[in-house]
Amino acid sequence: MANKKITSRDIDFAKWYTDVVAASHLASYSNVKGCIIMEPYGYQIWENIQNIMNSMLKKSGHQNISMPMLIPENLMKKEGELINGFAPEVAWVTHGGQEKLEERLCVRPTSETLFSDYYSGIVKSYRDLPVKYNQWCTVIRWEKETRPFLRGREFWWQEGHTIHETKEEAENEARFIMDEVYKKMFYDYFAIPAITGYKTDKEKFAGADYTLTIEALMYNGVSLQSGTSHYFGQRFSKAYDIKFLNRENKWEYVYQTSWGASSRMIGAIIMVHSDDDGLVLPPKIAPIQVAIIPIGDKEEVLSLANQYKDVLEKNNISVMVDTSEKSPGFKFAEAEVKGIPVRIEIGSRDLENNQVTLVRRDTKEKISIAKDSDISSCVTNLMNDIQENLLERATKRRDEMTYEARTLDEVKKIMDTRPGFIKADWCGDPECEAKMKEIKGLKSRCILKDEKPLTGKCVVCGKDAHDLVVWGIQY
Amino acid sequence: MANKKITSRDIDFAKWYTDVVAASHLASYSNVKGCIIMEPYGYQIWENIQNIMNSMLKKSGHQNISMPMLIPENLMKKEGELINGFAPEVAWVTHGGQEKLEERLCVRPTSETLFSDYYSGIVKSYRDLPVKYNQWCTVIRWEKETRPFLRGREFWWQEGHTIHETKEEAENEARFIMDEVYKKMFYDYFAIPAITGYKTDKEKFAGADYTLTIEALMYNGVSLQSGTSHYFGQRFSKAYDIKFLNRENKWEYVYQTSWGASSRMIGAIIMVHSDDDGLVLPPKIAPIQVAIIPIGDKEEVLSLANQYKDVLEKNNISVMVDTSEKSPGFKFAEAEVKGIPVRIEIGSRDLENNQVTLVRRDTKEKISIAKDSDISSCVTNLMNDIQENLLERATKRRDEMTYEARTLDEVKKIMDTRPGFIKADWCGDPECEAKMKEIKGLKSRCILKDEKPLTGKCVVCGKDAHDLVVWGIQY
Repeated sequence: MANKKITSRDIDFAKWYTDVVAASHLASYSNVKGCIIMEPYGYQIWENIQNIMNSMLKKSGHQNISMPMLIPENLMKKEGELINGFAPEVAWVTHGGQEKLEERLCVRPTSETLFSDYYSGIVKSYRDLPVKYNQWCTVIRWEKETRPFLRGREFWWQEGHTIHETKEEAENEARFIMDEVYKKMFYDYFAIPAITGYKTDKEKFAGADYTLTIEALMYNGVSLQSGTSHYFGQRFSKAYDIKFLNRENKWEYVYQTSWGASSRMIGAIIMVHSDDDGLVLPPKIAPIQVAIIPIGDKEEVLSLANQYKDVLEKNNISVMVDTSEKSPGFKFAEAEVKGIPVRIEIGSRDLENNQVTLVRRDTKEKISIAKDSDISSCVTNLMNDIQENLLERATKRRDEMTYEARTLDEVKKIMDTRPGFIKADWCGDPECEAKMKEIKGLKSRCILKDEKPLTGKCVVCGKDAHDLVVWGIQY
Repeated sequence: MANKKITSRDIDFAKWYTDVVAASHLASYSNVKGCIIMEPYGYQIWENIQNIMNSMLKKSGHQNISMPMLIPENLMKKEGELINGFAPEVAWVTHGGQEKLEERLCVRPTSETLFSDYYSGIVKSYRDLPVKYNQWCTVIRWEKETRPFLRGREFWWQEGHTIHETKEEAENEARFIMDEVYKKMFYDYFAIPAITGYKTDKEKFAGADYTLTIEALMYNGVSLQSGTSHYFGQRFSKAYDIKFLNRENKWEYVYQTSWGASSRMIGAIIMVHSDDDGLVLPPKIAPIQVAIIPIGDKEEVLSLANQYKDVLEKNNISVMVDTSEKSPGFKFAEAEVKGIPVRIEIGSRDLENNQVTLVRRDTKEKISIAKDSDISSCVTNLMNDIQENLLERATKRRDEMTYEARTLDEVKKIMDTRPGFIKADWCGDPECEAKMKEIKGLKSRCILKDEKPLTGKCVVCGKDAHDLVVWGIQY
């Protein structure tokens, strides 16, 4: 009994996605072209993500800061590749009040320039290093398409910017963020078995020496870039003059990183776990973990509902009791559409048998428990099961949709069936990368430096290949 | 022994203020004209304020949301007074990427227009009301002056926007926010005895029926508007067509409020409590509540420092142990400049006497305690004392600087001595308000509806006066 407001994901995945976002009230389109409104339920997920990531970042010595949202054109232009990369997609402020500005300002598309400019003023000695700052904000990129959480002119993100004494330390930082922050978030909280690796030169960030990326496979086999971590070497520090007296008392330019993950993570959560009844949320990031639905308005039913609520809340489980005037069936569907991990149904008939019913959102399985059970342990255990099951289910799907291809024909045959992650060797030549793109738009997602090539020969040209690359359709 | 980097506040208050902000690393000027950088220490205070206010708002049924940062000119113009009020100070985006936009967009100076437009789409019946949403963001107003936290082109704030079924409910909301949220924050957390009341028509928000305000008296007698709560009646709901079917099944326009408090609150905290040695922070909003300073590097000293740290942190007290290579005197000064409420000095000589020293930042008083004391209770009690003392001290100062004036001559005499809050009756005529301004720029701060007029005659014109007004110099 799929939700009537929601198109089936096997029929029209794109429509299914927007239907789920709308029906669960995560976000809505605004009358500002290209910009969405993150509604309370979506924003609560975002706040949960912020809390989790802030805790990880603070534990590892990072601090939050807030930079201006506007960047003067000249400051933006100091590093050539960055402005070239972003020029086609920034919004320009040209007037302040009634006056035309002498120099136009762009609304930040990313803040390497501001952080670099700031760092050049606060660092003098190796004793001032490292500096590991992060900010939460929205940025503007003048995109044509609008897909809530995935693409649009404004999105929410965190951007970390760090500077270091040595190349090694900076490279470790870029890797730490990818492995110990982003990947951990995806596995442990979002229940998403995302893969990580290096971007090819063509796909890396404008101005980076290299870019690490985390890529998640959606239900429909499409690949979503979900976070990136860049190692800049000294490119920005030379352009913005961020230097320090090193331990040999000589001036040296700092080694720099930046890394960002955005509200697109919410898009990934939706597209990996949800189904035709609506959202499915991993318990660890769900704003409401338990929906208690009293059936009928008998005193004993309501009183047990409130008693459960109190006990669960004392155990830091977030609960809502739905006492609205709607029918039980409607309330069940609403809890489903919102992806609330556990539903507790309390009805008079059940109570006569001293029972209540728990329903898990991921499998729809119904579980009867005695009404005097330790409700907090029951729910906690069930939520752990759900969290595990979601990761297992997504891992199984990812593995089923991960292919190895040794020849171009094999690549084409896979793509004729369905997309997914295709592992194939690559010689490093951008022309071979371009040829892959001719096959239904396949793009390199990431280079797996830790895995050996399959054959040692490029899947396109047959020349020697040292890199095993994961290819896929980019969201 | 005042901090050498800080000008005395009695010599040059404005300079003192910027010195304190710089020396304590709350914020710094950026190379983006008019915009500051909120540095980690300042941002932590802001995060504390957000946590406190979010908890108050969520408890009272408010939810966070996030609206676009850009507003199309036509949407902005739908309500005439608002755009007239803000037109001189908005920043306009005219180009996206390489293209000139068909319609320019302003960077939000405030978001009544966006919320109203959104609300018109989501409300159909009285059952959908009230809607009580809030957002945390930065806004842009094209100011000429830049004073960290006080004035500038970009500032941090929350803006709440609510719609209601009845006038009464909306008016209660506007008052609730002022009395139960803002005033509580100021008294209970910031230790600032701010006063509240109504703005005169001249000083109210563009488009509001009336504006409630919270005004705090700074050390130098100047008055800082620190938060406002507006009742709009149906002005915006008529302009943006936000209507609902009421209980009589008739279409009616909603009753609306908005309210905001900004990073200016940090400015108030600085200017009320701090001194010539730097910042003084109320323990309840201090990012670091205790600085432990080991004197020397003897094993037993360091081990006790860490032991204290563990105990305090277990009791949710935020602690830093300063083990840097600086001299103890330098570390003391640094803890002072940062306004850390409690300093614990641990020296070998003290330890020989089984003692350690606590130093409170507000009074500089040194307190010896036995090293085996229950450090957590000692610190908690001391922090409570400090919190109370700060409020008492500020209340005493406010009361000493609050004057009553029954004639214009009395007003002038007071202003010849020093500024403060001047209570005086007012007839309601804007011309009398303008005449007051001729006296060293005195402005009405708020009308005290709960207090009776002093004489019943206007202090300027002598006509009947029903309003007792607090006048002061606006920051």
